[in-house]
Amino acid sequence: MGLTIGVDVGGTKVAAAVVDDQGAIVEKSKRPTPSTDAEKTAAAIAEAVDELTEKHEVEAVGLGAAGFVDETRSIMLFSPNLAWRDEPLKQKVEERVRLPVVVENDANAMAWGEARFGAGRDADHLLCITLGTGIGGGVIIHGELYRGRWGIGGEWGHLRVVPDGRRCGCGNRGCWEQYASGNALVREARDLARVSPALAGRLLELGEGAPEGITGPEVTQAAREGDAAALECFRIVGAWLGQGLADLAAVLDPGLFIIGGGLSDSGDLLLAPARETYAKVLTGRGHRPVAPVRIAELGADAGMVGAADLARRR
Amino acid sequence: MGLTIGVDVGGTKVAAAVVDDQGAIVEKSKRPTPSTDAEKTAAAIAEAVDELTEKHEVEAVGLGAAGFVDETRSIMLFSPNLAWRDEPLKQKVEERVRLPVVVENDANAMAWGEARFGAGRDADHLLCITLGTGIGGGVIIHGELYRGRWGIGGEWGHLRVVPDGRRCGCGNRGCWEQYASGNALVREARDLARVSPALAGRLLELGEGAPEGITGPEVTQAAREGDAAALECFRIVGAWLGQGLADLAAVLDPGLFIIGGGLSDSGDLLLAPARETYAKVLTGRGHRPVAPVRIAELGADAGMVGAADLARRR
Repeated sequence: MGLTIGVDVGGTKVAAAVVDDQGAIVEKSKRPTPSTDAEKTAAAIAEAVDELTEKHEVEAVGLGAAGFVDETRSIMLFSPNLAWRDEPLKQKVEERVRLPVVVENDANAMAWGEARFGAGRDADHLLCITLGTGIGGGVIIHGELYRGRWGIGGEWGHLRVVPDGRRCGCGNRGCWEQYASGNALVREARDLARVSPALAGRLLELGEGAPEGITGPEVTQAAREGDAAALECFRIVGAWLGQGLADLAAVLDPGLFIIGGGLSDSGDLLLAPARETYAKVLTGRGHRPVAPVRIAELGADAGMVGAADLARRR
Repeated sequence: MGLTIGVDVGGTKVAAAVVDDQGAIVEKSKRPTPSTDAEKTAAAIAEAVDELTEKHEVEAVGLGAAGFVDETRSIMLFSPNLAWRDEPLKQKVEERVRLPVVVENDANAMAWGEARFGAGRDADHLLCITLGTGIGGGVIIHGELYRGRWGIGGEWGHLRVVPDGRRCGCGNRGCWEQYASGNALVREARDLARVSPALAGRLLELGEGAPEGITGPEVTQAAREGDAAALECFRIVGAWLGQGLADLAAVLDPGLFIIGGGLSDSGDLLLAPARETYAKVLTGRGHRPVAPVRIAELGADAGMVGAADLARRR
């Protein structure tokens, strides 16, 4: 059978799944992340694994964890949303579950899932860009995950796209994720609703009358209805996405871009303006192939599926 | 013996060398590039090779060529400074010299030379950034040159670092090479001399009285003398360089940066402010290793040495 478990460890939830060698999910388990206490986080991961191993025989466990993973893929160096600081996560979970554990950055695990079993199964050189609160990423080169020298590659959410631009949680200003993430879309919508309540009437209605009430899915809903204000927000964020894709193509010349994360649910609302800008600003355009831009296929399962496969290949 | 020939084919000169398997140059040959005629360019390359093969027995020829190379490493898709448009360079030169020919992008060949025999011989994950008229680059991953899916990686001179910024020869605005290249340094110096002739007195003197007379080596000379205006130019350009290194580290997490090209002759005048900015703005600083930034060691020979070694490994 060759079953393994993949666990997606985020700031809010621990999502685990038993996955077979074709990337199919056999069973899932989910619980909240006790994010402020590293011991409790490890215990919650072990609980999720134990729940699944009671019913399934598995070989190994892969963790896709939100944070910087060290080069030995054992230690969480740092996480913005969890209590990990030089946390020996591999060892702690192995002691609890008595199975081999592989630790990977969560965006890398997602990228690997999409590359093996999702939108990238026909490509060997691809970049996976996950758009949610921020921007995450994973690099696939020659059909393998590329982590960088110290395991911290693919952090392009922090490319500086605007000098002295919007403040970012990383401590810098002008990072790409402040312009092209799910949060950036919501920010555009709320800004628009604040300065032009008339234009943003439908958005405000969905947000129950207040700019701060407008959520990402509501902006997508309004845009699907054809609301001009919501479409304008997608055009702005899509253009920033396309510019960043062109920047990444200048650096790495990938054969494919896969767009994942919550914001990718908006599909062509986002991709149409992104592709337009990307093709318009790509350096050397007209003299080089243009990599396609696709929406991810595995949705919220990508991280679990990818982590499980990485555990299989440990 | 295992001798090969490496040829650096630029917009102004064809520089060829017989190189041994330790990267040592045995003999050189140089001539101007007939850049406006693709047939004559191929003939000039063949002449340089023939001149060297009269005296040395060689196995193969590597060309480091200024332009986009196709994925089969045979055809020059495009060159900004030469008459190549879908030019079958490998075939044309092979027919003339009757030796196996390998074609590589010139910045990639330089990066490979430095990685094998220069400042990167102890590193497996490095980025080589060449600063001249523009910015070129090469990516070394797992000890191998990485070209991207279609052979056009490492073109980070065209990362957009300033929205609506300075016009670039690639057709876009705000490209990194407009802010952090040899040309950018000269531009800063001339701008300063124009608006503040008093402050830029020494620079103007070296430029024979006119802002347009100031050259890159003169800015370096003045800075070495301690001239405040020249040092200011290096601080500005060095800071742009450091910001770009931080951007590349966010994407690829390299273990080493090597700075080559003509501007790298300025050494710490450029690297001191570059390292300072880089360390200050690197995302995740404090929670990750900081890649060292080194000056290239092979100087103008890097391209020939790298191309010759790539020919050996064909």
